Amino acid sequence: MSKDDLVGLNKETHKYQSFVPPQPVYIISGASVVGEKEGEGPLGKLFDIVGDDVFFGGTNWEEAESALQKKSMELAITKAGINENELQLIFAGDLLAQSIASSFGLVNFSVPVIGVYGACSNSGLTLFLGAMALSAGIGDYVGCVTSSHFSSAEKEFRFPSAYGNQRPLSAHWTVTGSGAFILSKNKKENSIQLTGFTAGQIVDFGLKENLNMGACMAPAAADTIYRHFKDFEASPTDYDKIITGDLGRVGQKALLDLLSVNGYDISDRHIDCGIEIYDYELQDTHAGGSGCACSAVVLAGQILKNIREGIWKKVLFVPTGALLSKMSYNEGQSVPGIAHAVILEAG
Amino acid sequence: MSKDDLVGLNKETHKYQSFVPPQPVYIISGASVVGEKEGEGPLGKLFDIVGDDVFFGGTNWEEAESALQKKSMELAITKAGINENELQLIFAGDLLAQSIASSFGLVNFSVPVIGVYGACSNSGLTLFLGAMALSAGIGDYVGCVTSSHFSSAEKEFRFPSAYGNQRPLSAHWTVTGSGAFILSKNKKENSIQLTGFTAGQIVDFGLKENLNMGACMAPAAADTIYRHFKDFEASPTDYDKIITGDLGRVGQKALLDLLSVNGYDISDRHIDCGIEIYDYELQDTHAGGSGCACSAVVLAGQILKNIREGIWKKVLFVPTGALLSKMSYNEGQSVPGIAHAVILEAG
Repeated sequence: MSKDDLVGLNKETHKYQSFVPPQPVYIISGASVVGEKEGEGPLGKLFDIVGDDVFFGGTNWEEAESALQKKSMELAITKAGINENELQLIFAGDLLAQSIASSFGLVNFSVPVIGVYGACSNSGLTLFLGAMALSAGIGDYVGCVTSSHFSSAEKEFRFPSAYGNQRPLSAHWTVTGSGAFILSKNKKENSIQLTGFTAGQIVDFGLKENLNMGACMAPAAADTIYRHFKDFEASPTDYDKIITGDLGRVGQKALLDLLSVNGYDISDRHIDCGIEIYDYELQDTHAGGSGCACSAVVLAGQILKNIREGIWKKVLFVPTGALLSKMSYNEGQSVPGIAHAVILEAG
Repeated sequence: MSKDDLVGLNKETHKYQSFVPPQPVYIISGASVVGEKEGEGPLGKLFDIVGDDVFFGGTNWEEAESALQKKSMELAITKAGINENELQLIFAGDLLAQSIASSFGLVNFSVPVIGVYGACSNSGLTLFLGAMALSAGIGDYVGCVTSSHFSSAEKEFRFPSAYGNQRPLSAHWTVTGSGAFILSKNKKENSIQLTGFTAGQIVDFGLKENLNMGACMAPAAADTIYRHFKDFEASPTDYDKIITGDLGRVGQKALLDLLSVNGYDISDRHIDCGIEIYDYELQDTHAGGSGCACSAVVLAGQILKNIREGIWKKVLFVPTGALLSKMSYNEGQSVPGIAHAVILEAG
């Protein structure tokens, strides 16, 4: 979709593209494993495990990220009170080339693995596909896991962190962590229900900035949220919170503006996992957190908890992804975005 | 899964991990677009479009691959006799870092895109997820598309082809092409039915050869086919053909050996898309073809046709993927494999 289309957010061609599971589907457990910096942030106490070794027992950044994914998946299984062999499928994704954090993180599970790629929207994508699998009648339990690591991401997309490259204020700080979830059609205590999904189109406004991911992703978030409202005949006030994945401070402003000119004001109920996870004053993370882990660990650590406790009753969770590759970027291509929306409600 | 486990092919822990769609799901159209070399091969006349420009109108290899994907998806939609806006979802994958061939190939479709990553097993993975989506009640039509390009793949994983690097006889030749399919619950003339799936586990025998993908993938193919036979209480003779994606000549031998020692002889009915697509004597492609496009274009060009014509009644189609990344490879990691099995029958 081009910029011209998006000014009208596909209004002319709108078609129902959402999904409501015919039978209830629940998140029966969520687990979060993060690095030291995330543990020191405002949400630090809500995460299950805060590691004190940036390598998480590995010998390089990629092995560290695989270790994160293995650990969070194991913990989600334990918290669900099931055995690994009760899982029918694992949906998994990360940001590295050829998704190697997932490949090596999950190699020891005797469960089929479905690799996904939607950049930092992966957490929403895995929940969507997990709910789809259960709705199709595939098994009783499926797993969803995503990960990112600050140092593996900087190396993959920009400069190795050892170079000490300067970062503009629009840059994000990739979250080191992994969030994992077990979904089931069988409700358990404290389950959160997944009641609807709007999958994302690829949206390209033509931005060419690999240090301003928020601006690249905001049009996709606006498009998905707009289509979501239309599909569900919903309005912002139907949700206690509308929570994007990792737009950060620059992307948040663009999202609110884009939705506002298209008739939806979500400014009083929008929060962004990337803004929530770090302390802007103290942690020097500029626009905010990002990475596949950002929305995943905030979902596992904070969002599920607040819904369980009745603080929020209905949440629209919208992980956002920048479809950036250093190859396309160095060839002068733009950075398209994608966002997948998930409705979360108390079980 | 480790090598030790695989000698016994997970026999001790076997659990049903397959999927049979509760309602029939059909491939209602398939489209194939290939490069000049593929057009000169033994299957050349079966492909829909043979391009004579290696860039397919783009300015670099990555744009070429995106153009392939766009073209095959458009053609599959046309052949299905539907409009783009009747598609509910597109499942897409390729081999490039962050799946950029799919991102830029599909950016102009006003359809949500679900990115997948299972390396060259992507074609099986997209069919599995597409059937899952329709089985979950999502829409009437979904699209599945995968692509690869010899030059973008060599650049991504090994050496830019302009270097003229020598290739051992175990090396594969990445297929330049794209295969696209439209799935539906509504049967049309010449439809092929998707009657069952066995999703793949990640299987790692510890091989560290990026110029011997066949050996790296064979254990995964053996594992998936073995589990498939167990899950469906089937035997090789239940299938007219068992067709792997791109094991090539080295991988084929390993597959036949591994299954044989585990009680299944498939040697009289096994063929491999990578072996079929090029002429061994005339085309200098060593072990055979590979890439996401390999199994996809052979499916669209040859396999669907042979089933439609009654030459084969029931086929087990098993696209195979090597979970290789140049990052993990250069860090000394092994190359795990994955394979997804799909049962194809006359509609």
